[in-house]
Amino acid sequence: MSLIVQKYGGSSVKDAERVMNVANRIVDAYKAGNNVVVAVSAQGDTTDDLIEKAKEINPNASKREMDVLLSTGEQISIALLAMAIEKLGYPVISLTGWQVGIKTDTHYGGARIHKVDTERIYSELDKKKIVIVAGFQGINKYDDITTLGRGGSDTSAVALAAALHADICEIYTDVDGVYTADPRIVKNAKKLDDISYDEMLELASLGANVLHNRSVEMAKKYNVKLAVKSSLNKVEGTYVKEVSQVEKMLVRGVTRDNDVARIALCDVDDTPGKAFQIFSILAKHNIGVDLIIQSIGKERTKDISFTVTEGDLEQALKLLEQHNDVICAKDIKWTKDVSKVSIVGAGMVNNAGVAASMFEALYNAQINIHMIATSEIKISVLVDRKDAERAVVAIHDKFELG
Amino acid sequence: MSLIVQKYGGSSVKDAERVMNVANRIVDAYKAGNNVVVAVSAQGDTTDDLIEKAKEINPNASKREMDVLLSTGEQISIALLAMAIEKLGYPVISLTGWQVGIKTDTHYGGARIHKVDTERIYSELDKKKIVIVAGFQGINKYDDITTLGRGGSDTSAVALAAALHADICEIYTDVDGVYTADPRIVKNAKKLDDISYDEMLELASLGANVLHNRSVEMAKKYNVKLAVKSSLNKVEGTYVKEVSQVEKMLVRGVTRDNDVARIALCDVDDTPGKAFQIFSILAKHNIGVDLIIQSIGKERTKDISFTVTEGDLEQALKLLEQHNDVICAKDIKWTKDVSKVSIVGAGMVNNAGVAASMFEALYNAQINIHMIATSEIKISVLVDRKDAERAVVAIHDKFELG
Repeated sequence: MSLIVQKYGGSSVKDAERVMNVANRIVDAYKAGNNVVVAVSAQGDTTDDLIEKAKEINPNASKREMDVLLSTGEQISIALLAMAIEKLGYPVISLTGWQVGIKTDTHYGGARIHKVDTERIYSELDKKKIVIVAGFQGINKYDDITTLGRGGSDTSAVALAAALHADICEIYTDVDGVYTADPRIVKNAKKLDDISYDEMLELASLGANVLHNRSVEMAKKYNVKLAVKSSLNKVEGTYVKEVSQVEKMLVRGVTRDNDVARIALCDVDDTPGKAFQIFSILAKHNIGVDLIIQSIGKERTKDISFTVTEGDLEQALKLLEQHNDVICAKDIKWTKDVSKVSIVGAGMVNNAGVAASMFEALYNAQINIHMIATSEIKISVLVDRKDAERAVVAIHDKFELG
Repeated sequence: MSLIVQKYGGSSVKDAERVMNVANRIVDAYKAGNNVVVAVSAQGDTTDDLIEKAKEINPNASKREMDVLLSTGEQISIALLAMAIEKLGYPVISLTGWQVGIKTDTHYGGARIHKVDTERIYSELDKKKIVIVAGFQGINKYDDITTLGRGGSDTSAVALAAALHADICEIYTDVDGVYTADPRIVKNAKKLDDISYDEMLELASLGANVLHNRSVEMAKKYNVKLAVKSSLNKVEGTYVKEVSQVEKMLVRGVTRDNDVARIALCDVDDTPGKAFQIFSILAKHNIGVDLIIQSIGKERTKDISFTVTEGDLEQALKLLEQHNDVICAKDIKWTKDVSKVSIVGAGMVNNAGVAASMFEALYNAQINIHMIATSEIKISVLVDRKDAERAVVAIHDKFELG
């Protein structure tokens, strides 16, 4: 008998029909003789609707109260999913984050999980029940409700799988698995049978939108075997696990990320400590900076460009303007009309030809590169947003990923 | 400094504007130097919408899961109300039933409160915070969420007031207070300045729809002083408290209750134990019976009539037909076209003239009486529904309550 943790996202439970569909899948796993624990997200647009309700009353509500509000979304889902399983005639119980004992830090709106109590879940599994757990939420040391921020339900599922030593953690989503590129852009994109944690991490943080990187990090740390599958069909998905041997294929996938904006600080004084000043201001306000380019100095000044997410753009610009007495940029420019296109693959860094091939593909497609960044297992370039899809296709073809 | 418990119902917080209005009232009480604890219901139609969602998936969902679902309604309200108070710039915290420690029995869907922990609330009041508590919900010994059933939020408020030894428990609703009759029916109905617990209990259970009788019972038991007020204006409401001296006015109010259906069992054998058999069947299924009339025997048979709520009618008829092999009624008749009209007032039972005056008023208005029942402080009659409003007006005039 195996212990399986499954996770279903908001689109998988968006209406009564989808909820019944998910219930049937869960019961199938249970009937096959497994212990089944399920983490589930809020239905469809519930979270957005709740945020809208809050904004109408107070756009600057405290994060603590936002968490009290938003956590109801998942609580509604667990109750409905449990009712659907009851209808199918199987024993089931729903549990909220605090009922399970998903203990987090006190960082409302983006809490990190410290510990998952297993006592209540094991006691319900002993009674042969299917256990439905509210994703995205936990409880802190003050007995206050916290939410885990973006990708929270994936993280809940992996944390449950780690705490329960589950045999596998199945993440159900609306795609069949992890592809070499977005199938909506690249017609002949291929589904990967498996992928390493590190590769998945790069793909997740590069906008592949399948798994959130926090959950992949945790899966890697606790060696939780993940499977990414569709909740809408029975296609075998993609396994994310420690891959022991170096794969033959260097480049595993091509991704595009539109959630990116570029800020350029022009004619900054070329004195030591400038970069430190700029990025520490942003870091203090939790604004993550991705690609960074510093121009080779003109006479006594330089240009510093970098990217942030679109959501952070406004606040970043405000902060930079507020502190421009220290930064002393002549001009602060910005654009949202850019996209980040990346290739990911283990061992890539040791193969100089990979970067060259990527750039060649873009050159052949007459696509201009604004910024470049590389890591152990990825190469990213910033291009105009209008060119992004063509770039993905060109690179995918070049590496014969189809 | 006083400790005030306030309760706001669903219509008082049904949208952003109403929530802000309630927030302002709460802040007024706080600014006047009081400690303020607030119990709040789910917004407007939220509970009905959630029930609808559940029915779509499973009309026979377990009551435990229904409670997990329904309790989200009040959780949404407390978060939004806290956000509104934050916007006004006052310190506030929202607490769910389990966070407060509102301990109930395990009767899901209609739980009774055993005990209210005060530690968390006192600690927040010590920090000078306004405390917003989710009404209608609690937690049982299994750490499972329970809801309190009809009138649950009133009961929550009174239980909080009792546990915290509050100076007053203010129940805000959409009427100005308790009236001598429904102002929509009787133009010159008068608001009562105060009323005793017992009188309020009779009014509540007779369909005055202002306070639920469970909450009044609890207020009486723990001697909690209640005030019934409108959340929409500043009119002084009605106080519900122990009234020491016998009031001059015997009859305090006239009520009408349309949530009533009459069942008649015709030609039942006139043998001992029949009434016991009939009403124990209904009691076993939690169907409350109100007025009961037994005809004076014909030869060897009798007719037994009684009333139930409209909601219980269908199940009651089913049970009676199932068990008619024991009951042996020749015919089972029923109607919903009846209303219960009642007068309430302490000491009424000692004044024979009251009942006579009531019947006289009905006779003068040519209204037929189907059933009569009396208690210490009330007299109820069953009349045709079409006559009910005229009956209320006639009785109200007769006793010069306007």
